Amino acid sequence: MTTDDTQHVLDRLYAVIQSRHGGDPETSYTAKLFDKGPEKIAQKLGEEAVETVIEAVADSPENLASESADLLYHLLVLWSATGVDPQQVWEALEGRLGTSGVAEKAARKQA
Amino acid sequence: MTTDDTQHVLDRLYAVIQSRHGGDPETSYTAKLFDKGPEKIAQKLGEEAVETVIEAVADSPENLASESADLLYHLLVLWSATGVDPQQVWEALEGRLGTSGVAEKAARKQA
Amino acid sequence: MTTDDTQHVLDRLYAVIQSRHGGDPETSYTAKLFDKGPEKIAQKLGEEAVETVIEAVADSPENLASESADLLYHLLVLWSATGVDPQQVWEALEGRLGTSGVAEKAARKQA
Amino acid sequence: MTTDDTQHVLDRLYAVIQSRHGGDPETSYTAKLFDKGPEKIAQKLGEEAVETVIEAVADSPENLASESADLLYHLLVLWSATGVDPQQVWEALEGRLGTSGVAEKAARKQA
Repeated sequence: MTTDDTQHVLDRLYAVIQSRHGGDPETSYTAKLFDKGPEKIAQKLGEEAVETVIEAVADSPENLASESADLLYHLLVLWSATGVDPQQVWEALEGRLGTSGVAEKAARKQA
Repeated sequence: MTTDDTQHVLDRLYAVIQSRHGGDPETSYTAKLFDKGPEKIAQKLGEEAVETVIEAVADSPENLASESADLLYHLLVLWSATGVDPQQVWEALEGRLGTSGVAEKAARKQA
Repeated sequence: MTTDDTQHVLDRLYAVIQSRHGGDPETSYTAKLFDKGPEKIAQKLGEEAVETVIEAVADSPENLASESADLLYHLLVLWSATGVDPQQVWEALEGRLGTSGVAEKAARKQA
Repeated sequence: MTTDDTQHVLDRLYAVIQSRHGGDPETSYTAKLFDKGPEKIAQKLGEEAVETVIEAVADSPENLASESADLLYHLLVLWSATGVDPQQVWEALEGRLGTSGVAEKAARKQA
């Protein structure tokens, strides 16, 4: 595997999730989700999003952090189940930062 | 600002989002969201989650990547609006990987 | 049309919605939704559900009633767009009440 | 109780739900939901909405009818838990039909 400890936790988690394809649904929750298929994983993502929304409105930052982690985990599982490479998403987010470091710095200054 | 280009795009994006507090809602979409408050940001997050679920079920990996980016951006804005430090979330996710690199590697092998 | 004023507002509203198929998207919001297709109507339903959840958690009964009305309207449009007859749903709900009036009355007494 | 068999199933179901306040969470699912409070009921509503959206996009009219029934049941429980009278919602929906039968018929013709 190409993961190393200098990578961001989301990339390392994604690598572990990828390694769960074909794993034992009895011992791995991720393998169990893959077994159920993309539709059920998407449903679970939707449920975690609802919980995240509720914690935000209920003003519980600590619970919000914890629900956000659940949301992100299920999002990574959904990507893995549907063939989305995290790199595609990171690049889409780079687009929001500006295509160059210069643009980004300009954007920062402007704030 | 403490961001540097070796950071993950999510951490760099969060820094930019943080810098938008008190910004001009006319020129910055992020500042506009802060202006509306956490409840409206949470609503927007929920809407992006619905779109993410739909693209997953409709089996459009490309749209899923793009909607995921929108979902993540609004999640970061929600954290910033409610005082959640991304580090809290990354640590919660580390917990899912195992507390040590050894545990993580073991977990990988187990798959 | 078979609607009459003794019918429940949901059944009358459904009849009106049904009559909007093929209508002018410029003058009828319902016709505009049909034009966009089931996926966009489902997305709109999801968004109204998020707002309903938020008003419930934010403890605004008045806003909750209003958002619930929006949610129900979009649910009826979704049924109409996908060929679901309200009668099917009413019958599924009768099932929750008990198959006979006796069972229902017993259930009421039991509470 | 004021319910009678000529009422719409939603009104009869609401009356039954109302009668469950203070009921035994061990034997009544509705009483169990009341016990958990509005936030958890709202969460459940959100989850049912996600399933409704998925069935609509997955193009399963039969499942959509069944999920819609679940969604409506939880919406009624949420109203009951937060003090929303169904009449308020029906009136908001009447507003969408036009304030008079004449307006409604005109609206129908226009379609």
